[in-house]
Amino acid sequence: MMGCKYGSHRVIEPKGVLPQAAYKISNDMSVLYDNEILIDVIALNIDSASFTQLKEEAGGDPEKIKKKILEIVNERGKMQNPVTGSGGMLIGRVEKIGEALVGKRDLKVGDKIATLVSLTLTPLRIDEILDIKMDIERVEIKGKAILFESGIYAKLPEDMEETLALAALDVAGAPAQTAKLVKPGQSVMVLGANGKSGMLCCYEAKKRVGPTGKVIGVVRREEAKKKVEELDICHEVVIADAQKPLEVLDKVLKANGGKEVDIAINCVNTPNTEMSTILPVRDEGIAYFFSMATSFTKAALGAEGVGKDITMIIGNGYTKDHAEITLQELRENEKLRKVFEEMYAK
Amino acid sequence: MMGCKYGSHRVIEPKGVLPQAAYKISNDMSVLYDNEILIDVIALNIDSASFTQLKEEAGGDPEKIKKKILEIVNERGKMQNPVTGSGGMLIGRVEKIGEALVGKRDLKVGDKIATLVSLTLTPLRIDEILDIKMDIERVEIKGKAILFESGIYAKLPEDMEETLALAALDVAGAPAQTAKLVKPGQSVMVLGANGKSGMLCCYEAKKRVGPTGKVIGVVRREEAKKKVEELDICHEVVIADAQKPLEVLDKVLKANGGKEVDIAINCVNTPNTEMSTILPVRDEGIAYFFSMATSFTKAALGAEGVGKDITMIIGNGYTKDHAEITLQELRENEKLRKVFEEMYAK
Repeated sequence: MMGCKYGSHRVIEPKGVLPQAAYKISNDMSVLYDNEILIDVIALNIDSASFTQLKEEAGGDPEKIKKKILEIVNERGKMQNPVTGSGGMLIGRVEKIGEALVGKRDLKVGDKIATLVSLTLTPLRIDEILDIKMDIERVEIKGKAILFESGIYAKLPEDMEETLALAALDVAGAPAQTAKLVKPGQSVMVLGANGKSGMLCCYEAKKRVGPTGKVIGVVRREEAKKKVEELDICHEVVIADAQKPLEVLDKVLKANGGKEVDIAINCVNTPNTEMSTILPVRDEGIAYFFSMATSFTKAALGAEGVGKDITMIIGNGYTKDHAEITLQELRENEKLRKVFEEMYAK
Repeated sequence: MMGCKYGSHRVIEPKGVLPQAAYKISNDMSVLYDNEILIDVIALNIDSASFTQLKEEAGGDPEKIKKKILEIVNERGKMQNPVTGSGGMLIGRVEKIGEALVGKRDLKVGDKIATLVSLTLTPLRIDEILDIKMDIERVEIKGKAILFESGIYAKLPEDMEETLALAALDVAGAPAQTAKLVKPGQSVMVLGANGKSGMLCCYEAKKRVGPTGKVIGVVRREEAKKKVEELDICHEVVIADAQKPLEVLDKVLKANGGKEVDIAINCVNTPNTEMSTILPVRDEGIAYFFSMATSFTKAALGAEGVGKDITMIIGNGYTKDHAEITLQELRENEKLRKVFEEMYAK
């Protein structure tokens, strides 16, 4: 029996929407559709906004958080926080591959994978919560989940810690898009060069622009500047407040010999940084917004307001081979890997 | 004396931001910077959201609306509605061109122009409100305004009614971007094909795809379908609810011989239409969001959730020559012009 490629066959309420928009989806694992993959779940990596909310509501009590998570999943058939609306991702082992997908995926039963689609659209059944690792927002469980035909995933690599791989996969869209956008000889500005996605984007951009290009990292503080400089992932690092577009413009122009940049990449997770991304870009250049704090209308009206003829791209979390491109960066660059291990792979 | 290209020299409060983000800017017209243009204002076309709010607050009384507009402009130096945050545009005659811009603009003193940057960033002084045309949200005034160096404008054409030209210029970004994006032989879906920007995009797309391409218009109702069919601006028009992605996907695939489209253009001004734009697009295709109701996060997370490797573009209200491209459409197509005259040029 074939289900909808996007999983709408499991939507219970309201009818006619996709699983992410649904309030409740079916987590009945006794039936596996021919184009579904059944996963034996090991752990949930709860989205940071969601985990913070759960923790606050529970007054920091792990038992209360467990109870709430079970309540949500029993009610909705997926782990979507009703307050924040957000989910997270999961890791587990492939338990069964639907007949229609056999031979069409680079997967076999027993493979350890991370799902790269949100928990907000993933059918999930929790049989038992084994442990909650409060510091890394990870919930270890016994349970099952479903990956739809359109669902993306990454096989967890043998050559790095699981936590390290997950930290990189979490932002895999940005560096992979950078790899595809950036061309030799170009000048590229990365706002938030010291953040998780920022560092990966800088590294990838520097590789792509080659010896005739220039990557300018923008950070907020002296300490961050030093860190990025030590990593050697930018040609130049400047200090500016991303919420002050004229300050950013001024610093970036100076770093780029007075010229506007070809591509700007926004990796800053604070609001009101749209104009700082737009202003330094040359006419017919590209502004790539990876920050989830981006406002669509602020970007659209902002570019018009300053008469900038640029292409503004919404950062798609997925692009072909994004997981492989991103994990490869950590393999290539020892320093970057070490920083990631220290900061994110606790 | 040169001012900032983006007008930051006129920002009074808070310091360091751009005029659009400022609470208060200087509307002192006794000083004209060398890279500014002084406009003798004829009328303000108030943004629809703003005008509706003003009208409601005033209980429909034109005198109270006048008073409120004067209050706002005296307080802020620009016509930015404090509740909606939105502005509008203005028309007027060029009174003086700053020395640094003489010969660098296709303008002379006396030319009648429409500013295509928002009133939310335009220094404005109102000396007197002459009349308010409630039905077309137009405020006729005596007053002055400033266009900054980066400010965009259009000379109002001699061969069409001012109201007609303004209606088209209001959405000029969309059809001009369509002209640049769409290539011969492509298949293009336009969501909201019967709206103001939708009709112009369809017409432009049909011209660009040529005899081997296909333009599929999506509308909500039978009546709209008939209207678009009579205009002959699509190869096929289908009826679907843009808030129901699976319905849109199904209808568009059928209309396109089972194939996903190369480009989707969203011109629907209702929320929750992101997935309807994303789902019908082929891998490596383009989703172009012109609707101001677009949610950045819904688009970003939505595409990832269904594993779609597409480029999602934020509709920039400006692209080079957008005014000329759009006005030309009305000149080329008699039927389209007639519909625009009847619907928007009252």
